[in-house]
Amino acid sequence: MFHVTPSSCDKFLSGRIRLWQPARGYRAGVDPVFLAAACPARPGDTVLELGCGVGAASLCLGARVAGLHLTGVERHAPTAALARRNAQENRRADTPEMDVIEADLADLPAPLRARSFDHVIANPPYFDRSRGSRAEGAAREAAMGEDTPLATWLECAARRLRPRGWLTLIHHPTRLPDILSALPDRLGSVEILPLAPRTGREASLVLIRARKGGGAAPRLHFPVILHEGAQHLADGEDYSRQISAVLRDAAPMPGLAP
Amino acid sequence: MFHVTPSSCDKFLSGRIRLWQPARGYRAGVDPVFLAAACPARPGDTVLELGCGVGAASLCLGARVAGLHLTGVERHAPTAALARRNAQENRRADTPEMDVIEADLADLPAPLRARSFDHVIANPPYFDRSRGSRAEGAAREAAMGEDTPLATWLECAARRLRPRGWLTLIHHPTRLPDILSALPDRLGSVEILPLAPRTGREASLVLIRARKGGGAAPRLHFPVILHEGAQHLADGEDYSRQISAVLRDAAPMPGLAP
Repeated sequence: MFHVTPSSCDKFLSGRIRLWQPARGYRAGVDPVFLAAACPARPGDTVLELGCGVGAASLCLGARVAGLHLTGVERHAPTAALARRNAQENRRADTPEMDVIEADLADLPAPLRARSFDHVIANPPYFDRSRGSRAEGAAREAAMGEDTPLATWLECAARRLRPRGWLTLIHHPTRLPDILSALPDRLGSVEILPLAPRTGREASLVLIRARKGGGAAPRLHFPVILHEGAQHLADGEDYSRQISAVLRDAAPMPGLAP
Repeated sequence: MFHVTPSSCDKFLSGRIRLWQPARGYRAGVDPVFLAAACPARPGDTVLELGCGVGAASLCLGARVAGLHLTGVERHAPTAALARRNAQENRRADTPEMDVIEADLADLPAPLRARSFDHVIANPPYFDRSRGSRAEGAAREAAMGEDTPLATWLECAARRLRPRGWLTLIHHPTRLPDILSALPDRLGSVEILPLAPRTGREASLVLIRARKGGGAAPRLHFPVILHEGAQHLADGEDYSRQISAVLRDAAPMPGLAP
């Protein structure tokens, strides 16, 4: 086993969340914040995050919705340890502390397999190891490379959801066909929300929601635009107003059914 | 067998194509024109249309690209007869006449099974008969209801394409997960182009392209906007400039890789 030395503490949601992260390798950026913004959790709901990393998505979701019961599963021990530290340091008074379980989602411990959740969220690795090049470094590889098939993530999510519970995923659009192919039949009412870097540009990220036992027709939403203007002109951020509200004010993701 | 009485002759592409259609039941509208605009055919290519109806998509494609060898398959005899009449009446001097074959795509005649094509195009029925209500009338039912599974359409297309040949489909976004699930693995380089009725609105149609043996990463394009403005305010058409060019001037569909 190798070690991760956290050497940066990064702010999310205008500093409402501060996360210790490894200085090198995979680092949480805006994607888990978007994932948290897209989960339709209500106060008091139970939420399971598969592959929670240092806890970014769950803790951002906990900052947005009060009283959530958050559980994260992370198989990489040093990363799970960081998630636990982040959970403690970001605990809020009105919400139970996030529970971090060190486990492989393909082989969850029995107590977790006995539970079901109102929501499952996940930000699975973006690259298919069988097709692409290997990411540098083992921690980065575990987060970015894929050695647990997408079908395993989705089946695990379907099993852990209560009836009518929601799955929310963020992923790269290159994997949209794979995700929709592997989505278990009992996850219905699919909503696809493309995130486009700018107006007129193809999607750079995609949010997918599905509901266990949902029978509504699938929907392909109009993209949410991440950046203003036709191209990057000035130094610094140029996030769109809507996305700034998501990233700074913990606003819910626009463009999805409420 | 019942009969279809053609009682309307409708203009497409500013009158460059005139199609006899049954007065009642399923009638070709803008969808086959969009399909024709999205097919990346080059002069002289071979094109097979599965479920060609009265020939709208193939004949519009033939009006846009010179010298195509067009073949349509249609199982409903009176509709196939109308397609043949339309093929004759819209024949252009620089292009062989469209060949219309009365057959079920699930059971193609041997001579057709011996051929391969540069392109396959299809506008399959939009509604899944096993889920929705039945359309009125047998001809409308055959066109709008689904009794040949999508997987059969896609497998037939994959078989009839030459290596590196292109499949182009238009369908309703509610079936996007089904299409991507049923797409045979040998059809790659998937491109998804949503057609949104207006800016900010969810897709009302979706164009899907895939290439036999294609290895490029799937792409989720920015939607093409069908109508100007936020809502329908005035009488008459309010198509966007780009879509007017597609519908009136036989322009290629914007938003797809060239």
